[in-house]
Amino acid sequence: MTQNIYDNQKFFENYQRLSRSTKGLPGAPEWPALRALLPALGGGRVLNLGCGFGWFSRWARQNGAARVLGIDVSRNMLMRARAETHDRAIRYLRADLERLSLPSSSFDLVYSSLALHYVKNLRGLMSKVRRSLIAGGSLVFSVEHPIYTAPSSPKWRTASGRKFWPVDGYLDEGPRSTDWLAKGVIKQHRTLATYLNMLLGLGFSIAKVNEWGPTRRQIASQPSWADERKRPAFLLVAARR
Amino acid sequence: MTQNIYDNQKFFENYQRLSRSTKGLPGAPEWPALRALLPALGGGRVLNLGCGFGWFSRWARQNGAARVLGIDVSRNMLMRARAETHDRAIRYLRADLERLSLPSSSFDLVYSSLALHYVKNLRGLMSKVRRSLIAGGSLVFSVEHPIYTAPSSPKWRTASGRKFWPVDGYLDEGPRSTDWLAKGVIKQHRTLATYLNMLLGLGFSIAKVNEWGPTRRQIASQPSWADERKRPAFLLVAARR
Repeated sequence: MTQNIYDNQKFFENYQRLSRSTKGLPGAPEWPALRALLPALGGGRVLNLGCGFGWFSRWARQNGAARVLGIDVSRNMLMRARAETHDRAIRYLRADLERLSLPSSSFDLVYSSLALHYVKNLRGLMSKVRRSLIAGGSLVFSVEHPIYTAPSSPKWRTASGRKFWPVDGYLDEGPRSTDWLAKGVIKQHRTLATYLNMLLGLGFSIAKVNEWGPTRRQIASQPSWADERKRPAFLLVAARR
Repeated sequence: MTQNIYDNQKFFENYQRLSRSTKGLPGAPEWPALRALLPALGGGRVLNLGCGFGWFSRWARQNGAARVLGIDVSRNMLMRARAETHDRAIRYLRADLERLSLPSSSFDLVYSSLALHYVKNLRGLMSKVRRSLIAGGSLVFSVEHPIYTAPSSPKWRTASGRKFWPVDGYLDEGPRSTDWLAKGVIKQHRTLATYLNMLLGLGFSIAKVNEWGPTRRQIASQPSWADERKRPAFLLVAARR
Protein backbone atom coordinates (compact mmCIF):
# COMPACT_ATOMS: atom_id res chain seq x y z
CA MET A 1 0.00 0.00 0.00
CA THR A 2 1.18 3.52 -0.77
CA GLN A 3 2.06 5.68 2.23
CA ASN A 4 -1.22 7.39 3.20
CA ILE A 5 0.39 10.63 4.29
CA TYR A 6 -2.84 12.64 4.03
CA ASP A 7 -4.13 10.73 7.06
CA ASN A 8 -1.06 11.79 9.03
CA GLN A 9 -2.59 14.45 11.27
CA LYS A 10 0.34 16.88 11.14
CA PHE A 11 0.64 16.63 7.37
CA PHE A 12 -3.09 17.06 6.95
CA GLU A 13 -3.25 20.12 9.18
CA ASN A 14 -0.50 21.76 7.15
CA TYR A 15 -2.01 20.65 3.85
CA GLN A 16 -5.34 22.20 4.79
CA ARG A 17 -3.65 25.59 5.04
CA LEU A 18 -2.25 25.55 1.48
CA SER A 19 -3.77 27.93 -1.00
CA ARG A 20 -4.98 24.99 -3.10
CA SER A 21 -6.87 23.65 -0.07
CA THR A 22 -8.50 26.88 1.01
CA LYS A 23 -9.23 28.33 -2.44
CA GLY A 24 -9.63 25.16 -4.48
CA LEU A 25 -8.64 25.04 -8.13
CA PRO A 26 -8.01 28.82 -8.46
CA GLY A 27 -5.52 28.46 -5.59
CA ALA A 28 -3.37 26.05 -7.60
CA PRO A 29 -1.08 28.04 -9.91
CA GLU A 30 -0.86 25.20 -12.44
CA TRP A 31 -4.63 24.84 -12.75
CA PRO A 32 -5.05 27.08 -15.85
CA ALA A 33 -2.43 24.97 -17.67
CA LEU A 34 -4.00 21.71 -16.54
CA ARG A 35 -7.49 22.90 -17.48
CA ALA A 36 -6.18 23.74 -20.97
CA LEU A 37 -5.36 20.04 -21.46
CA LEU A 38 -8.90 18.85 -20.71
CA PRO A 39 -11.31 17.66 -23.38
CA ALA A 40 -14.88 19.01 -23.51
CA LEU A 41 -16.73 17.33 -20.66
CA GLY A 42 -20.32 17.62 -21.93
CA GLY A 43 -22.19 14.46 -20.94
CA GLY A 44 -18.98 12.62 -20.14
CA ARG A 45 -18.14 10.22 -17.33
CA VAL A 46 -15.13 11.27 -15.30
CA LEU A 47 -12.83 9.33 -13.00
CA ASN A 48 -10.79 11.47 -10.59
CA LEU A 49 -7.83 9.57 -9.12
CA GLY A 50 -6.67 11.13 -5.87
CA CYS A 51 -9.75 13.34 -5.68
CA GLY A 52 -8.79 14.97 -2.36
CA PHE A 53 -11.38 17.48 -1.24
CA GLY A 54 -13.40 16.99 -4.42
CA TRP A 55 -12.69 20.40 -5.97
CA PHE A 56 -12.17 18.96 -9.43
CA SER A 57 -15.06 16.51 -9.16
CA ARG A 58 -17.44 19.39 -8.48
CA TRP A 59 -15.85 21.57 -11.16
CA ALA A 60 -16.27 18.75 -13.71
CA ARG A 61 -19.98 18.51 -12.92
CA GLN A 62 -20.37 22.28 -13.19
CA ASN A 63 -18.70 22.04 -16.58
CA GLY A 64 -20.94 19.44 -18.08
CA ALA A 65 -19.78 16.02 -16.85
CA ALA A 66 -22.69 13.59 -16.46
CA ARG A 67 -21.13 11.57 -13.66
CA VAL A 68 -17.96 11.73 -11.61
CA LEU A 69 -16.30 9.04 -9.53
CA GLY A 70 -13.69 10.41 -7.12
CA ILE A 71 -11.22 7.98 -5.54
CA ASP A 72 -8.86 8.69 -2.69
CA VAL A 73 -7.12 6.67 -0.01
CA SER A 74 -7.39 9.36 2.66
CA ARG A 75 -10.28 9.28 5.12
CA ASN A 76 -9.51 12.90 6.02
CA MET A 77 -9.80 14.04 2.43
CA LEU A 78 -12.96 12.09 1.68
CA MET A 79 -14.70 13.24 4.83
CA ARG A 80 -14.34 16.85 3.73
CA ALA A 81 -15.10 16.00 0.07
CA ARG A 82 -18.38 14.38 1.09
CA ALA A 83 -19.30 17.21 3.43
CA GLU A 84 -18.78 19.80 0.69
CA THR A 85 -20.48 17.91 -2.15
CA HIS A 86 -24.23 18.05 -2.65
CA ASP A 87 -24.61 16.33 -5.98
CA ARG A 88 -25.85 12.77 -6.46
CA ALA A 89 -23.96 12.43 -9.74
CA ILE A 90 -20.67 12.59 -7.81
CA ARG A 91 -19.65 9.48 -5.95
CA TYR A 92 -16.59 9.13 -3.73
CA LEU A 93 -14.83 5.88 -3.04
CA ARG A 94 -12.03 5.13 -0.62
CA ALA A 95 -9.40 2.96 -2.25
CA ASP A 96 -5.65 2.51 -2.55
CA LEU A 97 -4.53 3.43 -6.07
CA GLU A 98 -2.12 0.47 -5.95
CA ARG A 99 -4.99 -2.03 -5.57
CA LEU A 100 -7.80 -0.52 -7.54
CA SER A 101 -10.37 -2.37 -9.63
CA LEU A 102 -11.93 -0.32 -12.40
CA PRO A 103 -14.77 -1.18 -14.75
CA SER A 104 -13.75 -1.40 -18.41
CA SER A 105 -14.68 1.16 -21.12
CA SER A 106 -16.51 3.27 -18.57
CA PHE A 107 -14.90 6.72 -18.60
CA ASP A 108 -14.45 9.52 -21.11
CA LEU A 109 -11.82 11.20 -18.94
CA VAL A 110 -9.47 9.97 -16.24
CA TYR A 111 -8.01 12.91 -14.35
CA SER A 112 -5.42 13.04 -11.61
CA SER A 113 -3.75 16.02 -9.96
CA LEU A 114 -0.49 15.52 -8.03
CA ALA A 115 -1.31 11.99 -6.88
CA LEU A 116 0.43 9.58 -9.25
CA HIS A 117 3.93 10.30 -7.92
CA TYR A 118 2.86 8.52 -4.72
CA VAL A 119 2.08 5.30 -6.62
CA LYS A 120 4.77 2.63 -6.72
CA ASN A 121 3.25 0.35 -9.34
CA LEU A 122 2.23 3.10 -11.71
CA ARG A 123 2.35 0.85 -14.75
CA GLY A 124 -0.21 -1.46 -13.16
CA LEU A 125 -2.50 1.48 -12.45
CA MET A 126 -2.06 3.01 -15.91
CA SER A 127 -2.88 -0.35 -17.49
CA LYS A 128 -6.18 -0.41 -15.54
CA VAL A 129 -6.80 3.23 -16.44
CA ARG A 130 -6.41 2.47 -20.11
CA ARG A 131 -8.91 -0.38 -19.97
CA SER A 132 -11.32 1.83 -18.03
CA LEU A 133 -11.34 4.48 -20.78
CA ILE A 134 -13.54 4.36 -23.84
CA ALA A 135 -11.74 4.35 -27.19
CA GLY A 136 -10.70 7.95 -27.82
CA GLY A 137 -11.00 8.74 -24.11
CA SER A 138 -8.55 11.08 -22.39
CA LEU A 139 -6.07 10.78 -19.59
CA VAL A 140 -4.97 14.12 -18.13
CA PHE A 141 -2.69 14.24 -15.12
CA SER A 142 -0.12 16.26 -13.23
CA VAL A 143 2.76 14.99 -11.11
CA GLU A 144 5.75 16.61 -9.51
CA HIS A 145 8.24 17.11 -12.34
CA PRO A 146 11.14 14.64 -12.50
CA ILE A 147 13.62 17.53 -12.29
CA TYR A 148 11.87 18.50 -9.07
CA THR A 149 11.85 15.00 -7.58
CA ALA A 150 15.33 13.88 -8.73
CA PRO A 151 17.66 15.56 -6.19
CA SER A 152 18.99 13.73 -3.17
CA SER A 153 18.76 17.10 -1.42
CA PRO A 154 15.85 18.99 -3.01
CA LYS A 155 16.44 22.57 -1.96
CA TRP A 156 17.81 25.65 -3.69
CA ARG A 157 21.57 26.17 -3.61
CA THR A 158 23.51 29.33 -4.23
CA ALA A 159 26.85 29.54 -5.99
CA SER A 160 28.55 32.63 -7.43
CA GLY A 161 25.51 34.63 -6.32
CA ARG A 162 23.08 32.56 -8.38
CA LYS A 163 20.37 30.19 -7.22
CA PHE A 164 20.39 26.68 -8.68
CA TRP A 165 18.30 23.55 -8.38
CA PRO A 166 20.80 20.78 -7.57
CA VAL A 167 19.98 17.90 -9.91
CA ASP A 168 21.57 14.55 -9.18
CA GLY A 169 20.29 11.01 -9.40
CA TYR A 170 17.93 11.94 -12.25
CA LEU A 171 18.34 8.58 -13.96
CA ASP A 172 18.12 6.58 -10.74
CA GLU A 173 14.43 6.04 -10.23
CA GLY A 174 12.73 5.05 -7.02
CA PRO A 175 11.49 6.48 -3.74
CA ARG A 176 12.49 9.93 -2.52
CA SER A 177 11.84 10.91 1.07
CA THR A 178 11.25 14.62 1.70
CA ASP A 179 10.15 16.69 4.64
CA TRP A 180 7.25 18.50 3.02
CA LEU A 181 4.49 19.47 5.49
CA ALA A 182 5.66 16.50 7.61
CA LYS A 183 8.79 14.41 7.93
CA GLY A 184 9.41 11.43 5.69
CA VAL A 185 6.92 11.97 2.87
CA ILE A 186 7.65 9.31 0.24
CA LYS A 187 7.28 10.09 -3.45
CA GLN A 188 8.38 8.01 -6.42
CA HIS A 189 10.93 9.61 -8.74
CA ARG A 190 10.56 8.60 -12.38
CA THR A 191 12.17 10.15 -15.42
CA LEU A 192 10.06 12.02 -17.92
CA ALA A 193 10.90 9.33 -20.49
CA THR A 194 9.55 6.67 -18.12
CA TYR A 195 6.21 8.46 -17.76
CA LEU A 196 5.85 8.88 -21.52
CA ASN A 197 7.16 5.48 -22.59
CA MET A 198 4.94 3.76 -20.03
CA LEU A 199 1.89 5.38 -21.62
CA LEU A 200 3.10 4.69 -25.17
CA GLY A 201 3.83 1.07 -24.26
CA LEU A 202 0.27 0.65 -22.99
CA GLY A 203 -1.16 1.95 -26.25
CA PHE A 204 -1.86 5.56 -25.30
CA SER A 205 -0.88 8.32 -27.68
CA ILE A 206 0.66 11.46 -26.23
CA ALA A 207 -1.39 14.57 -27.00
CA LYS A 208 0.45 17.30 -25.07
CA VAL A 209 3.15 17.76 -22.47
CA ASN A 210 3.53 20.79 -20.21
CA GLU A 211 6.50 21.41 -17.94
CA TRP A 212 4.84 23.86 -15.67
CA GLY A 213 6.28 27.07 -14.38
CA PRO A 214 4.53 30.36 -13.61
CA THR A 215 3.80 32.74 -16.46
CA ARG A 216 5.31 36.22 -16.37
CA ARG A 217 1.86 37.50 -15.50
CA GLN A 218 1.62 35.16 -12.52
CA ILE A 219 5.07 36.29 -11.36
CA ALA A 220 4.01 39.92 -11.64
CA SER A 221 1.24 39.24 -9.11
CA GLN A 222 3.33 36.77 -7.04
CA PRO A 223 6.98 37.91 -7.29
CA SER A 224 8.09 35.13 -4.93
CA TRP A 225 7.32 32.60 -7.67
CA ALA A 226 10.10 33.90 -9.95
CA ASP A 227 12.46 31.06 -8.98
CA GLU A 228 9.89 28.57 -10.19
CA ARG A 229 10.96 29.34 -13.75
CA LYS A 230 14.47 28.04 -13.01
CA ARG A 231 13.14 24.47 -13.02
CA PRO A 232 9.64 23.13 -13.63
CA ALA A 233 7.80 22.05 -10.49
CA PHE A 234 5.09 20.09 -12.25
CA LEU A 235 4.73 17.82 -15.25
CA LEU A 236 1.34 17.88 -16.97
CA VAL A 237 0.44 15.28 -19.57
CA ALA A 238 -2.55 14.73 -21.83
CA ALA A 239 -2.84 11.35 -23.53
CA ARG A 240 -5.55 9.55 -25.52
CA ARG A 241 -6.58 5.94 -25.53
CA MET B 1 22.20 31.33 -40.64
CA THR B 2 23.16 29.06 -37.77
CA GLN B 3 26.67 29.51 -36.38
CA ASN B 4 28.86 27.15 -38.44
CA ILE B 5 31.19 26.23 -35.62
CA TYR B 6 32.46 23.07 -37.31
CA ASP B 7 34.28 25.29 -39.80
CA ASN B 8 36.03 27.09 -36.94
CA GLN B 9 39.50 25.58 -37.22
CA LYS B 10 40.18 25.28 -33.50
CA PHE B 11 36.80 23.71 -32.82
CA PHE B 12 37.22 21.32 -35.71
CA GLU B 13 40.69 20.22 -34.65
CA ASN B 14 39.37 19.42 -31.17
CA TYR B 15 36.24 17.78 -32.55
CA GLN B 16 38.32 15.49 -34.73
CA ARG B 17 39.97 14.07 -31.61
CA LEU B 18 36.73 13.02 -29.92
CA SER B 19 36.04 9.33 -29.66
CA ARG B 20 32.96 9.73 -31.87
CA SER B 21 35.15 11.26 -34.58
CA THR B 22 37.94 8.70 -34.49
CA LYS B 23 35.82 5.57 -33.89
CA GLY B 24 32.57 6.59 -35.52
CA LEU B 25 29.25 5.31 -34.21
CA PRO B 26 30.77 2.82 -31.73
CA GLY B 27 32.66 5.75 -30.21
CA ALA B 28 29.41 7.51 -29.28
CA PRO B 29 28.09 6.09 -26.01
CA GLU B 30 24.48 6.93 -26.86
CA TRP B 31 24.60 5.13 -30.22
CA PRO B 32 23.16 1.79 -29.00
CA ALA B 33 20.15 3.65 -27.57
CA LEU B 34 19.72 5.72 -30.72
CA ARG B 35 20.05 2.66 -32.96
CA ALA B 36 17.30 0.97 -30.92
CA LEU B 37 14.90 3.73 -32.02
CA LEU B 38 15.48 3.17 -35.74
CA PRO B 39 12.98 1.45 -38.00
CA ALA B 40 14.09 -1.35 -40.35
CA LEU B 41 15.96 0.34 -43.18
CA GLY B 42 15.59 -2.29 -45.90
CA GLY B 43 15.13 -0.54 -49.22
CA GLY B 44 14.37 2.77 -47.54
CA ARG B 45 15.42 6.29 -48.45
CA VAL B 46 17.22 8.10 -45.65
CA LEU B 47 17.85 11.78 -45.01
CA ASN B 48 20.66 12.51 -42.53
CA LEU B 49 20.50 16.09 -41.19
CA GLY B 50 23.88 17.21 -39.89
CA CYS B 51 25.63 14.21 -41.43
CA GLY B 52 29.12 15.21 -40.27
CA PHE B 53 31.75 12.72 -41.38
CA GLY B 54 29.09 10.43 -42.88
CA TRP B 55 29.37 7.61 -40.33
CA PHE B 56 25.63 7.16 -40.09
CA SER B 57 25.07 7.55 -43.83
CA ARG B 58 27.47 4.68 -44.51
CA TRP B 59 26.03 2.59 -41.67
CA ALA B 60 22.53 3.06 -43.07
CA ARG B 61 23.64 1.78 -46.47
CA GLN B 62 25.36 -1.20 -44.86
CA ASN B 63 22.10 -1.90 -43.06
CA GLY B 64 19.86 -1.95 -46.07
CA ALA B 65 19.01 1.65 -46.98
CA ALA B 66 18.57 2.08 -50.73
CA ARG B 67 19.70 5.70 -50.85
CA VAL B 68 21.04 8.22 -48.37
CA LEU B 69 21.18 11.98 -48.59
CA GLY B 70 23.52 13.55 -46.04
CA ILE B 71 23.28 17.29 -45.40
CA ASP B 72 25.69 19.43 -43.45
CA VAL B 73 26.68 23.08 -43.36
CA SER B 74 30.36 22.41 -42.65
CA ARG B 75 32.87 22.25 -45.48
CA ASN B 76 35.32 20.54 -43.14
CA MET B 77 32.90 17.77 -42.29
CA LEU B 78 31.74 17.20 -45.85
CA MET B 79 35.28 17.08 -47.22
CA ARG B 80 36.11 14.18 -44.95
CA ALA B 81 32.67 12.55 -45.47
CA ARG B 82 33.21 12.55 -49.23
CA ALA B 83 36.77 11.28 -48.94
CA GLU B 84 35.66 8.35 -46.81
CA THR B 85 32.57 7.38 -48.77
CA HIS B 86 32.79 5.16 -51.83
CA ASP B 87 29.15 4.49 -52.54
CA ARG B 88 27.15 6.13 -55.32
CA ALA B 89 23.90 5.64 -53.38
CA ILE B 90 25.12 8.14 -50.80
CA ARG B 91 24.97 11.80 -51.76
CA TYR B 92 26.23 14.71 -49.67
CA LEU B 93 24.91 18.22 -49.91
CA ARG B 94 26.17 21.36 -48.24
CA ALA B 95 23.27 23.39 -46.86
CA ASP B 96 22.22 25.44 -43.86
CA LEU B 97 19.51 23.58 -41.93
CA GLU B 98 17.76 26.93 -41.40
CA ARG B 99 17.28 27.44 -45.12
CA LEU B 100 16.77 24.00 -46.48
CA SER B 101 14.47 22.94 -49.30
CA LEU B 102 13.37 19.31 -49.19
CA PRO B 103 11.37 17.29 -51.71
CA SER B 104 7.99 16.11 -50.42
CA SER B 105 7.11 12.49 -49.53
CA SER B 106 10.62 11.37 -50.39
CA PHE B 107 12.10 9.74 -47.28
CA ASP B 108 11.30 6.74 -45.10
CA LEU B 109 13.58 7.98 -42.35
CA VAL B 110 14.90 11.36 -41.35
CA TYR B 111 17.76 10.99 -38.88
CA SER B 112 19.75 13.59 -37.01
CA SER B 113 22.40 13.17 -34.34
CA LEU B 114 23.31 16.14 -32.11
CA ALA B 115 22.64 18.77 -34.75
CA LEU B 116 19.14 20.16 -34.14
CA HIS B 117 20.11 22.07 -30.99
CA TYR B 118 22.08 24.41 -33.26
CA VAL B 119 18.98 25.31 -35.27
CA LYS B 120 17.13 28.49 -34.33
CA ASN B 121 13.98 28.01 -36.38
CA LEU B 122 13.51 24.36 -35.52
CA ARG B 123 9.78 24.47 -36.09
CA GLY B 124 10.36 25.61 -39.67
CA LEU B 125 12.80 22.76 -40.25
CA MET B 126 10.54 20.15 -38.61
CA SER B 127 7.64 21.29 -40.75
CA LYS B 128 9.76 20.69 -43.87
CA VAL B 129 10.93 17.36 -42.45
CA ARG B 130 7.36 16.22 -41.95
CA ARG B 131 6.45 17.04 -45.53
CA SER B 132 9.57 15.27 -46.77
CA LEU B 133 8.58 12.00 -45.05
CA ILE B 134 6.24 9.43 -46.54
CA ALA B 135 3.11 8.64 -44.52
CA GLY B 136 4.23 6.32 -41.74
CA GLY B 137 7.82 7.48 -42.12
CA SER B 138 10.08 7.95 -39.11
CA LEU B 139 11.94 10.83 -37.56
CA VAL B 140 14.70 9.77 -35.16
CA PHE B 141 16.96 12.34 -33.58
CA SER B 142 19.19 13.17 -30.65
CA VAL B 143 19.92 16.58 -29.15
CA GLU B 144 21.63 17.75 -26.02
CA HIS B 145 19.11 17.23 -23.24
CA PRO B 146 17.29 20.34 -21.98
CA ILE B 147 18.54 19.66 -18.46
CA TYR B 148 22.03 19.73 -19.92
CA THR B 149 21.56 22.93 -21.92
CA ALA B 150 19.49 24.88 -19.35
CA PRO B 151 22.13 26.14 -16.89
CA SER B 152 23.59 29.61 -17.12
CA SER B 153 26.81 28.02 -15.87
CA PRO B 154 26.86 24.43 -17.15
CA LYS B 155 29.46 22.74 -15.00
CA TRP B 156 29.30 20.37 -12.06
CA ARG B 157 29.07 21.95 -8.60
CA THR B 158 29.79 20.37 -5.25
CA ALA B 159 27.91 21.01 -2.03
CA SER B 160 27.97 18.99 1.19
CA GLY B 161 30.38 16.61 -0.55
CA ARG B 162 27.95 15.83 -3.38
CA LYS B 163 28.22 16.69 -7.03
CA PHE B 164 25.18 18.15 -8.69
CA TRP B 165 24.17 19.74 -11.97
CA PRO B 166 23.10 23.37 -11.36
CA VAL B 167 19.79 23.79 -13.19
CA ASP B 168 18.49 27.32 -13.63
CA GLY B 169 16.70 29.04 -16.47
CA TYR B 170 15.11 25.77 -17.60
CA LEU B 171 11.90 27.47 -18.71
CA ASP B 172 13.67 30.39 -20.36
CA GLU B 173 14.40 29.18 -23.86
CA GLY B 174 16.90 30.64 -26.26
CA PRO B 175 20.59 30.67 -27.08
CA ARG B 176 23.21 29.36 -24.67
CA SER B 177 26.86 30.15 -25.24
CA THR B 178 29.34 27.55 -23.99
CA ASP B 179 33.06 27.04 -24.29
CA TRP B 180 33.03 23.47 -25.61
CA LEU B 181 36.04 22.70 -27.86
CA ALA B 182 36.16 26.41 -28.66
CA LYS B 183 34.92 29.60 -27.09
CA GLY B 184 31.40 30.88 -27.73
CA VAL B 185 29.67 27.84 -29.18
CA ILE B 186 25.98 28.76 -29.50
CA LYS B 187 23.28 26.17 -28.88
CA GLN B 188 19.55 26.68 -28.56
CA HIS B 189 17.99 25.68 -25.26
CA ARG B 190 14.44 24.35 -25.55
CA THR B 191 12.40 22.53 -22.96
CA LEU B 192 11.53 18.89 -23.45
CA ALA B 193 7.86 19.90 -23.71
CA THR B 194 8.73 22.30 -26.54
CA TYR B 195 10.46 19.55 -28.54
CA LEU B 196 7.53 17.17 -28.09
CA ASN B 197 4.69 19.68 -28.54
CA MET B 198 6.37 21.06 -31.67
CA LEU B 199 6.29 17.58 -33.21
CA LEU B 200 2.74 16.89 -32.01
CA GLY B 201 1.56 20.25 -33.34
CA LEU B 202 2.99 19.40 -36.76
CA GLY B 203 1.08 16.12 -36.85
CA PHE B 204 3.82 13.72 -35.77
CA SER B 205 3.02 11.06 -33.21
CA ILE B 206 5.60 10.37 -30.52
CA ALA B 207 6.83 6.76 -30.59
CA LYS B 208 9.55 6.75 -27.92
CA VAL B 209 11.59 9.10 -25.76
CA ASN B 210 14.98 8.31 -24.24
CA GLU B 211 16.77 10.51 -21.73
CA TRP B 212 20.20 9.10 -22.24
CA GLY B 213 22.68 8.22 -19.57
CA PRO B 214 25.24 5.42 -19.53
CA THR B 215 24.13 1.95 -18.53
CA ARG B 216 25.72 0.30 -15.49
CA ARG B 217 27.61 -1.90 -17.90
CA GLN B 218 29.02 1.14 -19.72
CA ILE B 219 30.06 2.66 -16.38
CA ALA B 220 31.80 -0.57 -15.41
CA SER B 221 34.04 -0.21 -18.46
CA GLN B 222 34.24 3.62 -18.24
CA PRO B 223 34.05 4.53 -14.52
CA SER B 224 34.51 8.24 -15.32
CA TRP B 225 31.02 8.23 -16.86
CA ALA B 226 29.28 7.58 -13.52
CA ASP B 227 28.34 11.24 -13.07
CA GLU B 228 26.45 11.10 -16.35
CA ARG B 229 23.63 9.28 -14.55
CA LYS B 230 23.08 12.33 -12.32
CA ARG B 231 21.47 14.16 -15.25
CA PRO B 232 20.83 13.05 -18.82
CA ALA B 233 23.22 14.48 -21.38
CA PHE B 234 21.16 13.60 -24.44
CA LEU B 235 17.52 13.50 -25.44
CA LEU B 236 16.62 10.89 -28.05
CA VAL B 237 13.23 10.95 -29.76
CA ALA B 238 11.48 8.67 -32.24
CA ALA B 239 8.38 10.06 -33.95
CA ARG B 240 6.20 8.97 -36.85
CA ARG B 241 4.53 10.95 -39.55
